[in-house]
Amino acid sequence: MIPFNHRLKSIIENKKSCLCVGLDISPEMLGSEDLNDFKIHARKVIDATRDLAVAFKPNFAFFERWGSAGFSWLEETIDYIGSDHIRIADAKRGDIGSTACQYAHSVFTHFGFDAVTLNPYMGQDSIMPFLENPENGAFILCRTSNPSAVDFQDQQLAGIPLYERVATWADILNEHRNVGLVIGATAQDELIHIRALVPELSLLIPGVGSQGGDLYNSVKFGNQSGAALINISRGICFSGDLSERDIRNTAGEYVQKMNEVFHEKRKNN
Amino acid sequence: MIPFNHRLKSIIENKKSCLCVGLDISPEMLGSEDLNDFKIHARKVIDATRDLAVAFKPNFAFFERWGSAGFSWLEETIDYIGSDHIRIADAKRGDIGSTACQYAHSVFTHFGFDAVTLNPYMGQDSIMPFLENPENGAFILCRTSNPSAVDFQDQQLAGIPLYERVATWADILNEHRNVGLVIGATAQDELIHIRALVPELSLLIPGVGSQGGDLYNSVKFGNQSGAALINISRGICFSGDLSERDIRNTAGEYVQKMNEVFHEKRKNN
Repeated sequence: MIPFNHRLKSIIENKKSCLCVGLDISPEMLGSEDLNDFKIHARKVIDATRDLAVAFKPNFAFFERWGSAGFSWLEETIDYIGSDHIRIADAKRGDIGSTACQYAHSVFTHFGFDAVTLNPYMGQDSIMPFLENPENGAFILCRTSNPSAVDFQDQQLAGIPLYERVATWADILNEHRNVGLVIGATAQDELIHIRALVPELSLLIPGVGSQGGDLYNSVKFGNQSGAALINISRGICFSGDLSERDIRNTAGEYVQKMNEVFHEKRKNN
Repeated sequence: MIPFNHRLKSIIENKKSCLCVGLDISPEMLGSEDLNDFKIHARKVIDATRDLAVAFKPNFAFFERWGSAGFSWLEETIDYIGSDHIRIADAKRGDIGSTACQYAHSVFTHFGFDAVTLNPYMGQDSIMPFLENPENGAFILCRTSNPSAVDFQDQQLAGIPLYERVATWADILNEHRNVGLVIGATAQDELIHIRALVPELSLLIPGVGSQGGDLYNSVKFGNQSGAALINISRGICFSGDLSERDIRNTAGEYVQKMNEVFHEKRKNN
């Protein structure tokens, strides 16, 4: 049994790509209100990026907005991706232990995801049910990419920002080598600081692309010890004229830049 | 247009009940793996408590564990409850603004809930999309009922615990009179302290019943200014022999105690 963090690291090193394609398909961006158009577009994004991506990350909000029909589409999407890729449930769950057990059943057993995103606010008992199986990963929100991340995450607890407390606390939960953190690429200083602090944890880095975070530094510092995935959602899903060709070209450009960082890293080692 | 907090306060005062029935029906508690048994039991709980309850609160985890079939059951459940009760989506959502818009569409437009529970960790832009319509309420996690709540919520930020910072911050977001807080009945001192600090916010108080929180104080202090709902989930859903009669009797006993507090309160005013 290979722990999640080791599996992720090994896939990234073999592929010299750390691309995670976020499946966040909104009516506002697609210009349609017909669920069938969404299914077609999601399959197009997956087909266009299958050989480039290490992971796919459907955000539950974009499925849940359609209710049960949306969750049926999520089930189809997981099957369509298949088991050659890391499948991350971007669900940002956080609830009391007995409820967290139900969510863990949902994402790992029912839907068959490999990993999940979690919110740390309710503490350890809200996280533990997701860590039982070392093959399943859990990325805990640490320093997020949105402007309001500063409201609480940057606040000082006895001289240490909350996000840093979350990082060192998450490191203690990493007994099975399956804990990761979410750190936005829009917070480069925090990213570099956290990477040095918790070298073994996997990182999931959103905020490159439409949110403007730096790709080069995120790939380089994120992957300098443990593994780091760079997530691009809207920047790939709604690239150019929304054709498979434009989506693929954009994803290819990101992966080309990732390749260069990994080659540079190898040369320097 | 009546703001959510005013509507809730008025319903509670008319009914002299502040009972919120949590619909958390797990296979472990029901002793079945057949979704049809869950549907029958949920309808039984709703029928048994309809005239006693002010609100019903389905927790999404217990539906999501069944995937799309579970969300179809959630849609049926909302219809079955009908619009005479406050319907709270216990979803504990928290995501960047553009994603939060999709979740807000899900809970208020697609499913037709009156209110939602939210996680404050990602800050203001993760909350605002839920507050646009004053008729819809948002209960923000403040001091939760689980043992690990202490991990972060009780930590001091410049001498003030995080949960208190969340409470005063939530108060600022209450421009439309539709913001509430989740405070566990297991944390009585914190509950009394917060109620005094933010008299206008609605409270959603879990933790009475199977988690052992104090009912009398929660009703009394919770409702001394703004409105407070007392949520009971397992304590009602799995009462006695699981018959409609036992469920109703247990809910009736809770409401009887609530009545007494409201009558005592009226006498003292």
